[in-house]
Formats: sequence, structure tokens, C-alpha cells
Amino acid sequence: MPEAKTFQVQFQPIGKRLAASLDVSLFEAARESGLDLASACGGEGNCGQCRIMVLSGETTPPNLDEEFILSELELQQGERLACCTFARSDLTIQVPRESLITGQRLQIGSDLREIAPDPMVHAYLVTMVPPTLEDIRPDFTRLMDALAEAHGVTGLSASTAVLRTLSPILRENNWQVTAFVRGQEVVGVVAGEKRPLGFAVDLGTTKIAAYLVDLATGEDLASAGAPNPQIGYGEDVISRLNHVSRNPEGSRVLASKVRETLNELLDELVYQTEATFEQVVDACIVGNTAMTHLLLQLPVRQLATAPYVAAVGTSVTVAAAELGLSMAPGATVYIPPCIGGFVGADHVAMILACDLDEGNKTSLGVDIGTNTEIAIRKPGLSFLTSASCASGPAFEGAHISDGMRAASGAIEKVRITDTGVDLTTIDDAPAVGLCGSGIVDATAELYRSGLINQRGRFDKGNKRVGDGRFGAEFCLVPAANSGSNRDVVITQKDVNEIQLAKGAIHAGLQILLEATGTPPEEVEEVIIAGAFGSFLNVQSAIDMGLFPELPKAQYRQVGNAAVIGAKWMLISREARQRAEKIAGNTTYNELTTYPKFGRKFALGMLFPES
Amino acid sequence: MPEAKTFQVQFQPIGKRLAASLDVSLFEAARESGLDLASACGGEGNCGQCRIMVLSGETTPPNLDEEFILSELELQQGERLACCTFARSDLTIQVPRESLITGQRLQIGSDLREIAPDPMVHAYLVTMVPPTLEDIRPDFTRLMDALAEAHGVTGLSASTAVLRTLSPILRENNWQVTAFVRGQEVVGVVAGEKRPLGFAVDLGTTKIAAYLVDLATGEDLASAGAPNPQIGYGEDVISRLNHVSRNPEGSRVLASKVRETLNELLDELVYQTEATFEQVVDACIVGNTAMTHLLLQLPVRQLATAPYVAAVGTSVTVAAAELGLSMAPGATVYIPPCIGGFVGADHVAMILACDLDEGNKTSLGVDIGTNTEIAIRKPGLSFLTSASCASGPAFEGAHISDGMRAASGAIEKVRITDTGVDLTTIDDAPAVGLCGSGIVDATAELYRSGLINQRGRFDKGNKRVGDGRFGAEFCLVPAANSGSNRDVVITQKDVNEIQLAKGAIHAGLQILLEATGTPPEEVEEVIIAGAFGSFLNVQSAIDMGLFPELPKAQYRQVGNAAVIGAKWMLISREARQRAEKIAGNTTYNELTTYPKFGRKFALGMLFPES
Repeated sequence: MPEAKTFQVQFQPIGKRLAASLDVSLFEAARESGLDLASACGGEGNCGQCRIMVLSGETTPPNLDEEFILSELELQQGERLACCTFARSDLTIQVPRESLITGQRLQIGSDLREIAPDPMVHAYLVTMVPPTLEDIRPDFTRLMDALAEAHGVTGLSASTAVLRTLSPILRENNWQVTAFVRGQEVVGVVAGEKRPLGFAVDLGTTKIAAYLVDLATGEDLASAGAPNPQIGYGEDVISRLNHVSRNPEGSRVLASKVRETLNELLDELVYQTEATFEQVVDACIVGNTAMTHLLLQLPVRQLATAPYVAAVGTSVTVAAAELGLSMAPGATVYIPPCIGGFVGADHVAMILACDLDEGNKTSLGVDIGTNTEIAIRKPGLSFLTSASCASGPAFEGAHISDGMRAASGAIEKVRITDTGVDLTTIDDAPAVGLCGSGIVDATAELYRSGLINQRGRFDKGNKRVGDGRFGAEFCLVPAANSGSNRDVVITQKDVNEIQLAKGAIHAGLQILLEATGTPPEEVEEVIIAGAFGSFLNVQSAIDMGLFPELPKAQYRQVGNAAVIGAKWMLISREARQRAEKIAGNTTYNELTTYPKFGRKFALGMLFPES
Repeated sequence: MPEAKTFQVQFQPIGKRLAASLDVSLFEAARESGLDLASACGGEGNCGQCRIMVLSGETTPPNLDEEFILSELELQQGERLACCTFARSDLTIQVPRESLITGQRLQIGSDLREIAPDPMVHAYLVTMVPPTLEDIRPDFTRLMDALAEAHGVTGLSASTAVLRTLSPILRENNWQVTAFVRGQEVVGVVAGEKRPLGFAVDLGTTKIAAYLVDLATGEDLASAGAPNPQIGYGEDVISRLNHVSRNPEGSRVLASKVRETLNELLDELVYQTEATFEQVVDACIVGNTAMTHLLLQLPVRQLATAPYVAAVGTSVTVAAAELGLSMAPGATVYIPPCIGGFVGADHVAMILACDLDEGNKTSLGVDIGTNTEIAIRKPGLSFLTSASCASGPAFEGAHISDGMRAASGAIEKVRITDTGVDLTTIDDAPAVGLCGSGIVDATAELYRSGLINQRGRFDKGNKRVGDGRFGAEFCLVPAANSGSNRDVVITQKDVNEIQLAKGAIHAGLQILLEATGTPPEEVEEVIIAGAFGSFLNVQSAIDMGLFPELPKAQYRQVGNAAVIGAKWMLISREARQRAEKIAGNTTYNELTTYPKFGRKFALGMLFPES
């Protein structure tokens, strides 16, 4: 038996060094040392996203997956899939930009309305006289007496975590402190006069968007974003749930990964604001049901298999300390209720922030992502009806040959002219792939130009249609002009993936309209939420049949409404009550059990007749 | 520089092996590996309790402390103090019985009245239908619906710790479970039909007494006791507080020591009852203010220095999980309020269990320990008045040459006759030392026999009075008849220690009577609580002037009333309300600031004129 051996692996250009053992793939080894490579399949050799270039050293030879995904030339040049490659000596590895989960564009802002703050936590400044032998009141009693006298606040208690901090803080600060009080509970005590802050988070499957907010004024103090670090365990929800179900440590590892990132965001926000962690006294985190289950380390096995049941659907208020978040010692985190296993707290937040629960128009709300949630509201119906479509990650760039996230070099606008292709890329960088809005534009343009037919088939007779590894393809950028030294193409397989996604969303919209007895011509408003939705060219989306051509409808692109909803619930008790009402009263419509689902799905895959 | 070196040390007769380094005393080394040796001074070389015998190997030579405390013969025979001895080779050590903190007699039972249960937590048996694609209610919603339907219990929530257990328990047990509900919160879910149990604890400075109770019936299911493992860090409260104030890790270490012991007691109780940890859904832990602060890891620096202020005086309800206790995932621990820095939750529990707050007699309640708490109740006074006397640990056997805890071989009764001494020892074992009741008996007998005078001085002219290392002494058991092969004696220094203790208690009683305007002849009842108090010969205590000769008073020895009070608060919400009232309304009387304290103390040190 050879003894257990590890090799030094250096990743360029980031300069990361790590140790890889014989039986751990470079993908796994990188992940274990905190370097997350892109992956849609979670390291199963299927998606081709974790490409690396071996610059020097010995590895295992390419396997069948790699021979299928990588071209002969790529393999000759040392290109490999990190998940299929094992070190056999010390290595130097080049990581292309596209394989790194960093630097993508995050959309946080929004033009939704502001609401009046009515927060859970209030701040009270108090000054006390120090104890003497004649006045030996316990420290907490002294604080309570001062709060009652100066502010009329009585009947308070505090958790041991808060009580542990009190005695030294009082003595180190001349007995003048700010007490943060939530209901009847002191959640934190800080020196001098400080304002209470809150942390609003949209915990997306792909991206995490966060705000730091002044709870008293509702003012946004800072915003920050980060990729969801669980991406290394599978790009889509089901891969992650399967990872956790299969690995005894999975639940703990995935929870701690995302909690670490939340702390990094807190760090950044607190730093930007010149505040302290002890001032962050409340939080609201929204996400789909799987994301909130993983964050809370709740069981997910029953969520990953039919009938796909959530462990918890009600709102959960959990101690920030239990999640390991750097906040005030008694701070809590509010996770709003969800509507179902596939319609989560993020959808509740979106409905809230778009006022879909209170509007008097016939409105559709669509939040496009790996799962696309749709809600419909119309006067006369008792409340909202919602549905979830398994649209897949195609619009986020996954499962698309040259798909990528909305990062530098991503093609975001496409116009196919008679003689060529007009493109816009993010940061005007040389093109390396297509992000969601580019994919929609390109597909619409292929159809408009007659390069694909109504069924999505490339016209192989057209000389602009090439013949690639996956059959017919269209070249958007030749290798010579691209940022990756490879052709940027859209293939027959890509078009098919996009058709599956649009088929799902189209079917969902149609069924919701039918189920609520809403003729399409009555729809007055279509609210498109989500980061992808806000960069989208709506006309392209209609042209390719992703969105229906609704005669009266106004399309409104509102950006990340989920994080705005999270902020509302953070600063307003009334907003939390509305969220409970939305989750409790919204009818969930299971699409897949709808009689004509299959037919509607298939019809939705077709491109619209012009 | 010699390299860091450790030696193997074997402790006989228990067979414990451990590694000791050059600069760590054998006392410290033993403590670090979980072997706690007796110590009143916390390893400072003052108390002489951590005696060991070096059977083989090289050590550092005896230091001045050892030369002062140990006789020349003892040193020649290899006797040492573990706290002053450092290994210089591998060693074999003999640990005498008296130096081991084990095997002492614990008094848990009591003849106090029973109360009707009205617990915080109730158990509900429910059966659910499993989910289907048509019924995808989340697991927790399904449970709540079943609780509402079968038992009319609504509006419940649960902590994430409970929610984490729910999904697998439901699926593994055919959807039939018992839910334990506290107020509006589900604190645990267990398979099948189970009764809810509670854990009542008196966390004494020296001993821990615990009960497991059926919350629904109030029935005692099992009892267990253990020494407080913090004894190795100092026998008295102040030594432990100083240890924590001086050592950055002290707070964590002392808390985790006592939490481990609580878990061992839980283990034993659950095993005896054939129950599971998940059934233990509530707890009440009483102790003096320092003990509860150390358990909760609250700051104690301000408690150890004037003006001796508690961090918290109100009751604290803390998650059992936060204390690391093996109980139901949502179980909480109730720590009752205290009256002051020196009058803790244990005194509140004692007052409660003795009904001192509700009585209509003029009553004194006395709980003798390292600190002795006294409460007085009389008709006409608005409520109770209490005080705390720094009586020291003499009555628990500490600071007494041959003092020991109430363990096998301890002399518990003494009668000095004209010709000799009649003794009773615990377990009728050969005498090795004196426990508290033996010390009181012996002192009373020395005075009655004229061997000491009213000022406590030995009559050196009496031929029965010997001349020992600490001056005059009286030999109770000669070495030849003892279990330790040493004379068991009571010395002039011992008598002085006892006088200090009785002086403190006497002064406390007198001042409380004066402060409340109570002539001694009006006292109708004296309740003596605590384990020491229940083995005590009351007449001896009166004869030696520990207790006043009160003309009308009935003495009642009620045993460990604190743990009975803890049980009451565990099973009854009304008892908790009474405890809050006791703590809130009892007047604390600081003895040391009373004008004539010094004089009363000095008078109390005298033996009574007969």
C-alpha cells in the first residue's frame, strides 16, 4: 500500500495554494480550501463549468466525461474539468475567469415605494448612578429601573447572552448606555448613544443581496452582494438538497457556508456604515423554501422527494447567535412564512413589495429564476393565487454552452443584422459568454431572422448556421474576437434548453390565468421581478414567447423586489403581519397535476406565430 | 534550556494515570484530568486538605507551607500536599480517602408538605395523516392542525432546535407522537405516548442534589446527588469567584464543570426512571447567587468586590441547550430570582418550601452553610426580612484540622464521659475525622466537660488536654483506633474557627430580631434547613451557643428545603409567582453595616453561661 500522499496545487492568477490528496478531485480540493469553482452539476462531470488549464505537473488522464465535453484541441492545450482531474504531482493550474464564482453583476436597487418605519426594536439612552453599599441593586435591575424612570418602559427581561455583556459595559462607560429593546426583551446594550440597525437579506440560490438599514428612520445605509457559496455543491436547489440528503455532514456544511457569507456581508455593511455589530439588532432573511431550510439546518430529505413537503411553512424567529451571525447578543432573525415547498418567503416578500396583495388591478407578478414563481391578483378573487414553474437555470446562464452569469464580458444585448451581429457586453469587455438577457435577445433574434423555425430547429440550409459538436449552431463571436479565444456560440442544444424554460413559464402563466378564470385580455399589469428580469429586453421576451403578448398589459420591471420586501418586514411590524396574511391566504396551484399541463408545456415551447 | 517534559503519575487506589509536566502541581494535574482532590483554599497551600502520600518516584522537596501544615513524621513517611508538589520523575501516589471528593452522605429527602401540580409544560398525544401530493401541508403545520383538532391547542410556534427533529420523528413513528407544549411553544416531540418530566436541582457550593419529577402528577421518580465539581477551584464561594476573575478561561471552565455534573445527574436519573432525555422538558435550578452566576457564565468580578453587586437578580429562563444540558430540544431552565448578592435563589426556595412567606407564626428560618442565610417572618411585619452571615465552611468540616465531609468514617456524634469518649461514625467505619454534626457535638461536649472555658480556651491544666502542633488539643480517637492511623483531634485553632462561625450566625440572628423589633421570647418556631442542619443535635447547638435559647421556640429540622422549593417551582406556576414575590418583597438586611455588628459578633463567639 502506498502511503497517503498530498500534492501542492497552485491556482493562477489568484495565487491560491492548497494541498490535494490522490483521491480528491481538484474541484473538491479547491472547494475545501474555500475556492469555489463554477458548477451547475455539483462536480458530477456533466456541466462543463469548472474548466481549468493545467500549466505544469502530472494529473490523471482525461476521462470519458471530459472527452465528451472538451474538444480534442482543448484537451491538447491542457484544458480539463476540475471535477474529473486528480493530482499526481505538484501542479500549477490556471483558472479562467468564467470558472470563478466572483465578480458577477448584482442588482439590488429598485424603484418600489418606501414605507413608514414601525420597527420591532427601539433604542433607549439611559444614565444610571453607580452602586454603593447602600444601593446594591443588581446591574440588570438598575438598568430596568433607569429604563422605567427615563422612558416608562417596564417589565423587561433579557437573555443570558445579553446579561453576560451588561456588567462590564456599564462599568466601562460611566453607566451611560443605549439599551435596544424588542417587545419586553432587552436584546443588546451598547456604550453611549447609538442607533439601532437592521440587516435585510435576499438569500437567492445563486446570489445573496443585503442591506443595512436604520431601523428608526428606515434609511438604507449600505448595500452589498455576494454569490451564494453553496453553488459549489450544485447550482440548482435539487442538487443541493440531494447533496445534503446523501452526506451526513452536508446539512451542517451548507448552513455554515452560507452563514459565513452572511457574516462577510455584515462585516462589509458595518464597515461601510462605521457602525458596530452590536448595533445590528434585527434581521429579515428571505429565500426560497430550500434556501431557508438549508440556512436553518432544517431537515430537507422530505423536501427533495415527492410529495415535496416543507418541514416548516410558518415564519421562524431564531436567535442570530444560533445562526452564528455577528449581531447584538439578543438579536433575532425573522424568516417569513412560505406558501409551499416551491413558493418560498422570497415570493411572499416580492408580493409584499409589489403591493400585489393590496392592488385593485388585474396583475401578474413573475419572479424569474431557477424556479419561476408567478402570482395573480384580480379584483373579485378572494386573494392571490400562485404557482411555481421548474424553469431551470437556463436564464441564469447554466446548461447553455456559452452561458455565464451577468459578469464582465457577458453578452447582454444581441441584434442579428443581415450582415453580422451587433452586441453589447457587460463592462464592454471582450465577449466570453452570454448572460440571461443576452440569451433571451439572441434567441428572439435567431427566430426573427429565420435562423430557427417555430419549433426551434436551426435552418441547416442557411449558410450562417454552422455545424458544431452538438449539431447546428450559430456563432455570435468568432474565437479571434472573443475574450476566451473560443467561438461564442448558441447551439441547437441551447435553443432546446431555452424552449424548456420558456415552455414551463408559459404553461404556468396560462394555467394560472385559466384556473382563476382570467381572460388574457383582462390582465392590466405584469410585474417582472428579480435581477434577471430587470436587465431583460421585454420585447425580446415577448417575441420569443417567454412572456405572452397581453393586449392591455403594462410590463413593469421592478428589480429585486424580494430584498425590498425583506427590508419592509425588517422595519415594519405591519409588513410582517401582511406577510403572514399573504402566506396564509395565497392559494397554491400545483401546475404538474393540472389536467392539460403537458400540452400547455409543449405549446409553450413553440415560438409564437408572427 | 531543558525541553518540556512530562512524567507519568499513577494515583492509587483508584488506578488513575495521568501526565504531569514539570511546572504543574500534582493538584492541578489531577484536576485537569478530572480527578478532583479536596481543597478549601483552591490549591494555595493553606488548607491542608489535598494530602497525598508519595509511594515511589522523585518530586520537588517540601516547601514552607507543607512544613507548617505537615508534621516531621508525616513528611518523613512521604506525606505531601498535592498543591505544593511537582513531579521530577514518574510517580506512584496514594490518595487517602479524605482527600477524594467522593462518597459523602447526601441528604435529599424532606418531610415538607406536597403541593398540587400546575406545570408549565403539558403533553399531548396526536396522530396525523401522512402528506400526499394533494395535501402538502408542511410538517409543522400538520402537527399544529392535529393539536388544534384533537386538543384545541392553537397558535403554537417552535424553536429551530425542535423543528429540526420533527420531520424524521414523524416519519419514523407512523405519524403518532407526543408533543410537549409550554405556553404557546412546542418544546419537544417524541415518538408514541410519553409523560413529561422535570429536573429539580439544588446547586450547592459543596453538594448538588437533584430530583426527576413527573410534571403531570408531581410524583418524585428518582433522586441523585453529586459533589459540586467546582470544589477543586476553591471550597468557598469567594475563592471560586477570585479564580474566575483572575483566569480568562475560568468562567467557561467552571460553568462547563458544573454543567457536566448536571448532565451526569440527568443521566443517572433518566436511567433509573427508564425514560429518555427528550422527555425532560423543564428544569428549575436553585443555588446561591454566586453558584447561579457561575452556572450561567455571568460576570462575577463585581460580585467578588465591594459593594458585591449581582449581575442579575431577577429570575432567568434560559434554553437548556444553551447550558449544554441533555433535555428536550426546546426545554428551558428556570433560575428563580435572588434577594441579593449573598441571598440567592436557594434561600428563596427554602422560604417557599417552608411556607415562611405565608405563615402566621413568628418564625425564623436558618439555612446553615458556608454562608448562612436567615429569614424572619412575624405577623404584623409587611413581609420577610433576611440576612446572610459569612459563617465559613467550619460546619462543613473545612478549616478544621480533622474536619471532613459527611462521608464514611466521619464522626457524627460525640459524648465526652468522665473516663473517655463515646462516638458514632457514619457507616460505623473507623473514625477518620469529624463532620459538621460531630464538630458541633464535640465543641458542646468540650465546654460542658469544662475542657474549654467560656472564651473557648483549653484548660491546659487539665490532664486530658494535650499539647499539639497548634497548641492545646483534645484527642477524640488515638491513632491506633482511627481509620487514618493518625490521632483524630480537635485543636485550639479548631475551636477558634468554630467560634468565628457561631459568632457570625449568632450576630445575624440577634440583629435580625432587633432590626424587626422582635423580642426573643416571641419567636415561636425556628426552622433549620440544609443537610448539615438535619443531622445536627439541636441541644448541642444550643449548648454551645450556635442557636439561641429561645423560650417558646420549637426547632424544626426540615432537611434540604431548597431542593423541595426547586421542585415546587418546577411543577407549579403558582410557586414561581410566590418565588417572584418572595424575592421582590423580602427586605435584605446588610449585617456588616449594622452599628453594633462587631460587638454582637464578639459576644456570639463566647460560650453561653450556664
